[in-house]
Formats: sequence, structure tokens, C-alpha cells
Amino acid sequence: MNFPGFEFIDHIGISVPQGTLEQSVEKYKLLGFTEVHREEVHGTHMVREVLLRIGTSQNLVQLLEPLSPESPVARMIEKQGGRGGFAHLAFRVQDINAAYGYLKENGFHMTQEPGPGSRGTQIFFVHPKDFSYLIEVVQEAPANV
Amino acid sequence: MNFPGFEFIDHIGISVPQGTLEQSVEKYKLLGFTEVHREEVHGTHMVREVLLRIGTSQNLVQLLEPLSPESPVARMIEKQGGRGGFAHLAFRVQDINAAYGYLKENGFHMTQEPGPGSRGTQIFFVHPKDFSYLIEVVQEAPANV
Repeated sequence: MNFPGFEFIDHIGISVPQGTLEQSVEKYKLLGFTEVHREEVHGTHMVREVLLRIGTSQNLVQLLEPLSPESPVARMIEKQGGRGGFAHLAFRVQDINAAYGYLKENGFHMTQEPGPGSRGTQIFFVHPKDFSYLIEVVQEAPANV
Repeated sequence: MNFPGFEFIDHIGISVPQGTLEQSVEKYKLLGFTEVHREEVHGTHMVREVLLRIGTSQNLVQLLEPLSPESPVARMIEKQGGRGGFAHLAFRVQDINAAYGYLKENGFHMTQEPGPGSRGTQIFFVHPKDFSYLIEVVQEAPANV
């Protein structure tokens, strides 16, 4: 396996305006998606997230609804003309620290060191200046693999 | 299987400014991606596309470089502040006509009827007003499945 060891698309993050999350979840269910997880993430993120599985694949759609106007996702939705839309693309790795080390060595710009994401995952982000959009790197929690 | 039968993420489309395609391809290769296809699409699209596989998964990144300033992708890049970025998310189905019929029945808005995409695929698009971003639906060419 080549470093950084991206295996597949873990999820695509989609922002949805405050108050529209349930309506959005219903629309994905109409497309055959299955809700697999729901969580409120506080701290700096301040979002309600819902994860939806596509068919029987490992690919998920992650809907992100801001819990407050100060959430970074609320600011993103403002920039998206209030409608929401693409937030980030997340790749799955087996070893988050190896992935981080490889990307750093190769001159990519990370916004943070690996740290806890939702569901017990470990995550970090690659700055949009490297790929013109936000990339997330995810190591699954041991219990969920 | 539920209709419309979305199986997994076929690809995520990413626009790249004219003249930057090769540099972008090299960056993905540094991340361990493998180039699997390359094609110029003329007609109304006017793009050069490169498909890159993520690990050993079925998920691809599709880089789209406009071949002329009149390409819809060139106009998209302009709106993205000249940097490029997220273009669309494509879901794989086994039966493009069944998927189209199901979505139509359920009130979604398609920009076109199913028709030829690159690599012998059959595709159609769901209008961004339905999901706040552009969704593509793809049936693989018989030879590529």
C-alpha cells in the first residue's frame, strides 16, 4: 500500500441550513440511503451531524447542520448563498499518524494535528490551498471497523 | 435493493483551472492515486478529464479541465474565484433508466434524460435545486463493469 494509504471515500460532508436537517434526511432516505449515526458535536464545531450509508457500500454522506450562528458550518452556508452544499471530502486511512507524517513530509498543509472526530474516529484536515477544497483524513474507531 | 439503486460513489468531480491539470494529477499521484482513464469530451462539455482511483476502491476522483473559456466548467471555475473545486458527486446505478424513472416519479428535477457520458457510460444529472449541489447518476459501460 502506498502512503498516505487512502483506501476509499469515507464520507462526503454536506452542509445544510439550520432547521432543514430532517427534511434533508428524508430526501436521502427517499433515494435509498440508510441513517447509520447521529450526533451533536460541540466545542469549536457546533454541528448536528447525520451519517447516511449509500447502498451497501462503505461510502457515507455526512449532513452537517449548524447548532448556532457562530458555527464554522453556519459561516460556510452564508458563503454558499444560504443554501448549503459541499463541505469536505473525507478519505479513510488505517494509520492516521502515518498519513499525517507522510503528508507533512511532502509539503502539504494541515489545519491541525490528528485529533478526535465524531464516533470515536481520529481525524485531521488538509488546508484548501493544497487541493482547492477541504480534504479530511479519517481513521475509524477500533469498535466501528 | 431500494430504487433508485444507488450502489456507491462512482466519482467526485473536481474542476481545475486551464493549464493546471498535469500539476494536479501529479499531486493526486503523490497521495497514492492511480490514473485509470483520460479523455477529451467535446460537444457542450468541452473538458479534458482524468480519472484517478483511490486505493483499491471503486471510488474515483474525476479532474475536469476546461478546453475553452466557453466550457461550462470554465464558468464554474470563475464562480469558484478562479481556483476550481467541487463540481459534482456521481452515484453508480445498475439501471440508469429505472433510476431516472424513479427520481422523476418522486418529484426530483433532472437537467437531461439519460445519455452518453465519457468511457461509454450512461449518465444524467439531478438539478442542484434538489440537493443544493449537482448530483450525477452513472451506469457503467458493459465492458468496464
